[in-house]
Amino acid sequence: MIEDKANWLQALKAELGEEKISTDKSRLYNFSHDETEDISKLPEVVVRPTDTLDVSRVLQIATKYGVSVTPSAARTGLSGGAIPISRGISLSMESFSKIIEIDESNSQATVEPGVINQVFHDACKAKGLFYPPDPSSWGSSTMGGNVAYNAGGPKAVKYGVTSAYVLNLEVVLPSGEIIWTGANTLKNSTGYNLTQLYVGSEGTLGVITKIVVRLLPYPSSSFTLLAPFSSAESACSAVEKIFRSGVIPSGLEFMEREAIDQAMKYSDAVNLPTGKEIEAHLLMEVDGYDEDSVMREAEKLASVVESSGAIQVLFAETKKERDALWKLRRSVGQAVKSGSIYKEEDTVVPRSKLPELLLFVKQIGEEFGFNSVCYGHAGDGNLHVNILKGDMPDEKWNGNYLKLGIRKIFEAVKSMGGTISGEHGIGLVQKSYMDIAFNDAALNIQRNIKAVIDPKGIMNPGKIFPDRALK
Amino acid sequence: MIEDKANWLQALKAELGEEKISTDKSRLYNFSHDETEDISKLPEVVVRPTDTLDVSRVLQIATKYGVSVTPSAARTGLSGGAIPISRGISLSMESFSKIIEIDESNSQATVEPGVINQVFHDACKAKGLFYPPDPSSWGSSTMGGNVAYNAGGPKAVKYGVTSAYVLNLEVVLPSGEIIWTGANTLKNSTGYNLTQLYVGSEGTLGVITKIVVRLLPYPSSSFTLLAPFSSAESACSAVEKIFRSGVIPSGLEFMEREAIDQAMKYSDAVNLPTGKEIEAHLLMEVDGYDEDSVMREAEKLASVVESSGAIQVLFAETKKERDALWKLRRSVGQAVKSGSIYKEEDTVVPRSKLPELLLFVKQIGEEFGFNSVCYGHAGDGNLHVNILKGDMPDEKWNGNYLKLGIRKIFEAVKSMGGTISGEHGIGLVQKSYMDIAFNDAALNIQRNIKAVIDPKGIMNPGKIFPDRALK
Repeated sequence: MIEDKANWLQALKAELGEEKISTDKSRLYNFSHDETEDISKLPEVVVRPTDTLDVSRVLQIATKYGVSVTPSAARTGLSGGAIPISRGISLSMESFSKIIEIDESNSQATVEPGVINQVFHDACKAKGLFYPPDPSSWGSSTMGGNVAYNAGGPKAVKYGVTSAYVLNLEVVLPSGEIIWTGANTLKNSTGYNLTQLYVGSEGTLGVITKIVVRLLPYPSSSFTLLAPFSSAESACSAVEKIFRSGVIPSGLEFMEREAIDQAMKYSDAVNLPTGKEIEAHLLMEVDGYDEDSVMREAEKLASVVESSGAIQVLFAETKKERDALWKLRRSVGQAVKSGSIYKEEDTVVPRSKLPELLLFVKQIGEEFGFNSVCYGHAGDGNLHVNILKGDMPDEKWNGNYLKLGIRKIFEAVKSMGGTISGEHGIGLVQKSYMDIAFNDAALNIQRNIKAVIDPKGIMNPGKIFPDRALK
Repeated sequence: MIEDKANWLQALKAELGEEKISTDKSRLYNFSHDETEDISKLPEVVVRPTDTLDVSRVLQIATKYGVSVTPSAARTGLSGGAIPISRGISLSMESFSKIIEIDESNSQATVEPGVINQVFHDACKAKGLFYPPDPSSWGSSTMGGNVAYNAGGPKAVKYGVTSAYVLNLEVVLPSGEIIWTGANTLKNSTGYNLTQLYVGSEGTLGVITKIVVRLLPYPSSSFTLLAPFSSAESACSAVEKIFRSGVIPSGLEFMEREAIDQAMKYSDAVNLPTGKEIEAHLLMEVDGYDEDSVMREAEKLASVVESSGAIQVLFAETKKERDALWKLRRSVGQAVKSGSIYKEEDTVVPRSKLPELLLFVKQIGEEFGFNSVCYGHAGDGNLHVNILKGDMPDEKWNGNYLKLGIRKIFEAVKSMGGTISGEHGIGLVQKSYMDIAFNDAALNIQRNIKAVIDPKGIMNPGKIFPDRALK
């Protein structure tokens, strides 16, 4: 085995040059974890390719020697996808950081996978163009990771998630062959949709080296509103009424009281109303290209929310207030997690089922003895459930006891028409629940697709699919 | 072989009942062709399942005996996908004609694949909900066919094609197993995107038996505008300027002079300006939820088009005028084809490339001695090129001579970042050009996916993939 490693390491050095290969301990440590709870594993080597041909060389060597390859960039994932659980090579895409083209004529752009979402967003905005997907991690997560996990964000409720923007991908296959999955067009009925097969495939089918996305004109107006509610369920119920009124908000976020309290402790961005009667908030945004009509939409939204039980409706009066509210929302995840040992579940249901889901989560918490803090993209039915360890003993927390509780939540989600991940992906931490999301036949198709594209199983092994023995 | 047929036919009758199996000649004839040019092949039998279990029984028998199964419903396709080129079973989905649910709380609906697009559209509209995909054939084509070919239509330019609306599919696999591909949610990062693998797969991977789509609020206002131009190229050039102005039209159709003339002969719906100087028209629509702002958008659109070389800009003043204009546009395809032997190509490019594509098509026409009539969804860069036979001798028309001309057009399309089908699919008629759209590795992935899902190759054989010997 040691000789084997010497062989593939030597081959990598010969093909790519020593300077792109690192076995430095602190670098290995950096690539041993992402933002997922408390899991880590050291890779044997971190390889930093600088172009598509480099990636092809790495995958050819990995296929030849049967070495695992785990693509990664910012390592901001929440499902453990970038953790090199089978060791081998961590493939750092950090050098792929170029915005290749923003094509104003066609409202399209071509970027490399290591470009940070917000950097790209801002570059588009400077040209009057809009790339909507905005995960909370947008200040640090990369376009490649966003595509690999089909990232969402607050704006998805109006504009859709990452998949709605990806037109075409350059991908290096496990064999080292290089393909384009589609075309740079808004419509495409040519063969199977390889582009969408790769979006959300979590680095298990190859390495994305170029991304072509469509863009929209940048909305010139937006209004942000905040509404406190005296119960979390009434806040969730208001969500359905908003859509039935005909308004499509560009943000519709739900935060439980405790999520807000922790976020305000964590960051001093803004102070929200904290009356004792407040149990939850809805943070809402409308946007568009015509200020008058956006204002009318905001007023309609306010009146719907007021008549749905909001205690009050507050308009963010200035850009500063608006930015502070959204900064607070973006910090909720970090804030809730900073104070506790936790497990985060990324449940998603048809949005009318949100109140039912929230009640069920609290019931399961009582039954299994945990507290939870819930928040998320209410307009999409996407509720992040943070289960807090509190004083639960380690053996219950880490063992089958808690897994059973989580399983019950996911089974309820499934029975409501939902599924087990809305935007974080399956990775390591949700794979043992995949039998809830899919029946055997549907799961087998996915396993078979993986097997024909990656017959040696080198690409990000141990992710997405349940371990056969453990099921 | 005859005995074989007796066996599978008997098995079908035993499992489904005689009344669902037809070998009646006129029925076989009806299922021998779709709306594609002059190709036909008689199936051996037409089977009409009435529920998902029936479909499962048919596919189990077909897999056991190795019989081809070609799903079909309205047979309005333009790429030959519903033609049972290997004979066997035409699987008529006409009994799957139920709108199972329009879920107003979640703006979703579940329909069977035999539901006609416009029937579904109208049922949604009656509840204030909007299903945007509107292929020209919407009055007769079915939801199943729309999903199988990823149908577009005029509204795609603002609202996206069929794939943008499909959330979840019930599919019977070639093995007879039944799966759901996803969940009834707006976001989903759970495993590979089987839903989008099935959208556009042309009945080659199984049979779709239920379709879950998302819906929007129905736009309350719209304006339709028509602009004649003195050259086709200047009309195409105006398209890019419209988008750069920030307006996203809900329809942006291009029609060459000849397309309009033929449509006016074919239907008496409306009379358009026919001054000698007119060489093309743009038909445009804007829509939205706020009448004032939609009107302002229409005015902005008109001023952009006027300053981009339009001879004049006409507003449709009444609903009757508007409906007549769109009826005319919808009839263009039928009209152009009714008078001539033709081949239709469904080219799609980034929209700024449209003028270049149009010029190139005309050059190739001169070189190869054919006339063409072009029209299509200019906002999407989707140009339907109708090549007219005129006095081209049969051997040139049917042989490699014309194929070479078409190949040159597709190669140009590819070099512009486009591809060979925007909304009609590949089916029979475009499969020999798939090597232009994809390299060998990308085509092999698709072949391998087909092989693992349908190892006996029973599902709609002879479609999408180029015949290996002929390439």
